[in-house]
Amino acid sequence: MNLKTISKPIEKELEVFDKKFSSSLKSKVALIDLITKYILRQKGKKIRPVLVLLSAKLCGEINERSFIAANLVELLHTATLIHDDVVDDAKTRRGIASINAKWKNKVSVLIGDYLLSKGLLTAIDNNEFEFLKLTSEAVKSMSEGELLQIQKARNFDATEETYFKIISDKTASLIKTCCKLGALSTAENKEDVIRLGIYGENIGISFQLTDDVLDYTGRKKLLGKSTGNDLKEKKFTLPLIYSLKKAPSKKSNEIMKLIKSDSDKKFVKVYDFVMEYGGVDYTISKALEHSQKASEALSSFTDSEAKNSLSDFAVFVSGREF
Amino acid sequence: MNLKTISKPIEKELEVFDKKFSSSLKSKVALIDLITKYILRQKGKKIRPVLVLLSAKLCGEINERSFIAANLVELLHTATLIHDDVVDDAKTRRGIASINAKWKNKVSVLIGDYLLSKGLLTAIDNNEFEFLKLTSEAVKSMSEGELLQIQKARNFDATEETYFKIISDKTASLIKTCCKLGALSTAENKEDVIRLGIYGENIGISFQLTDDVLDYTGRKKLLGKSTGNDLKEKKFTLPLIYSLKKAPSKKSNEIMKLIKSDSDKKFVKVYDFVMEYGGVDYTISKALEHSQKASEALSSFTDSEAKNSLSDFAVFVSGREF
Repeated sequence: MNLKTISKPIEKELEVFDKKFSSSLKSKVALIDLITKYILRQKGKKIRPVLVLLSAKLCGEINERSFIAANLVELLHTATLIHDDVVDDAKTRRGIASINAKWKNKVSVLIGDYLLSKGLLTAIDNNEFEFLKLTSEAVKSMSEGELLQIQKARNFDATEETYFKIISDKTASLIKTCCKLGALSTAENKEDVIRLGIYGENIGISFQLTDDVLDYTGRKKLLGKSTGNDLKEKKFTLPLIYSLKKAPSKKSNEIMKLIKSDSDKKFVKVYDFVMEYGGVDYTISKALEHSQKASEALSSFTDSEAKNSLSDFAVFVSGREF
Repeated sequence: MNLKTISKPIEKELEVFDKKFSSSLKSKVALIDLITKYILRQKGKKIRPVLVLLSAKLCGEINERSFIAANLVELLHTATLIHDDVVDDAKTRRGIASINAKWKNKVSVLIGDYLLSKGLLTAIDNNEFEFLKLTSEAVKSMSEGELLQIQKARNFDATEETYFKIISDKTASLIKTCCKLGALSTAENKEDVIRLGIYGENIGISFQLTDDVLDYTGRKKLLGKSTGNDLKEKKFTLPLIYSLKKAPSKKSNEIMKLIKSDSDKKFVKVYDFVMEYGGVDYTISKALEHSQKASEALSSFTDSEAKNSLSDFAVFVSGREF
């Protein structure tokens, strides 16, 4: 199972989306045109537009409003990635040089702002007030979730409850919004929008849980990024939180001391610890549980290609190779 | 004449604004609260809320909508400043450590995003669709203007026409929006909104022209920043553009060569050049011309304290010490 087979039911609509997205990036300013053409060459996975369009198709016929929603979320997501690369001083993105590596930070931040305002204007020019409200709330949640995580990391303080609040805000809020926007564009009743919201929230959580497992167990080649990043940033993710609770307090205290230290060998020891006390297994089981919940949220819909794809997507997010 | 006397007619309303602004910054996340309290300590000049409220007062009675507009622009402006400091790696802002110096880049970018989404939600939650449209267009223009300026700087290419397009986009668009939002909140007819738009556009241009003169002639103590920054970034501003056109081509070619070089003594020589060929005087005269146009845009309004203050503001922006 992969994204290509999952997006099969909306294959043609994705081509239409590509054209609309490219043309929405056009500008009279030559430098902007140059950079946005480069962005298009980076070819993102388009997970968010895929979710918008599949959700729209599940609830009705994909229409102009569905494309506006897909464009809004992809512009917003692209802007976020460009800003992230500035903050992380990332040299590459999707296999080619990042915007900041090629055009410096100032230009990157400005292009991000430009794409963000373009996204907002897409919704505004089409009087999509509700799309805008949901999206702004997602942006607010995303920044709140990330800031809460940083705050907790600074205090070496984390509980399972806070962890779920953080990932629900920082990751699931936008995924949930994608599914809700898609549903809103075509659904005839509110219940369908709510169901897609529940679906999106759960795949978002499952996605992040899987990501946090992969940060311990993932192989560089598969994930395109190395392991141990969360630990470096002192982020307490579920594998660690669970193991700290399960292990004898003497052992947990030792690990906490190690995490607070500047030791180079931190990761190997913490890795052994989270494997030994079941943190990884527990997190995988939680990811599967949320994928299951996502699928269940679809149960009242009549069978369709879109429904199958969304179910497959729920399995896909938690099934990335460990 | 100073900002304090200019804001006299809206003194009480500014106090109300302060309270509303503080409370709009509150968050359940402790780290966000800590940082926003710090932002409030930085005490900005509040030029944008002052313009919103004075424009509102000129056209009618300041109301809840006027405060929503003032809050929206100040949140947006604060977010922009925080992001700017990340890009410029600025260590201080308004005399105290910048957010990025105190909490690092990642937190700064996230707080900026948080404030931006808060601003959008202020408008959305109050169904102020038109405020949102004008503001998003201003954000788009601001980034377009800055990117056009960078593009032109890279090509060592600048004409007076392009220069005015750039400053109209990057600086005047938001100032214009402030005045229009204020007017929209209270005005009974569209003409008043248009007039305030013309007023704002012209003070924005006058403000930037004055800033660009000060980058050549300003004294560090007064402006809080050193001179020659534009030249360092190869920005062709009006003092230079005009002098390059006026000087004999042999002299202009010499200066162009110098600008393209890495010489340390660039600024002193270019300074002498722009003084000799009248670039500074010409730019000052243009700033005064736009201040005059701004005042003229107010002529059809009945005399009032607010009208006097807005006229004074027009003089103030071009009259900062050279």
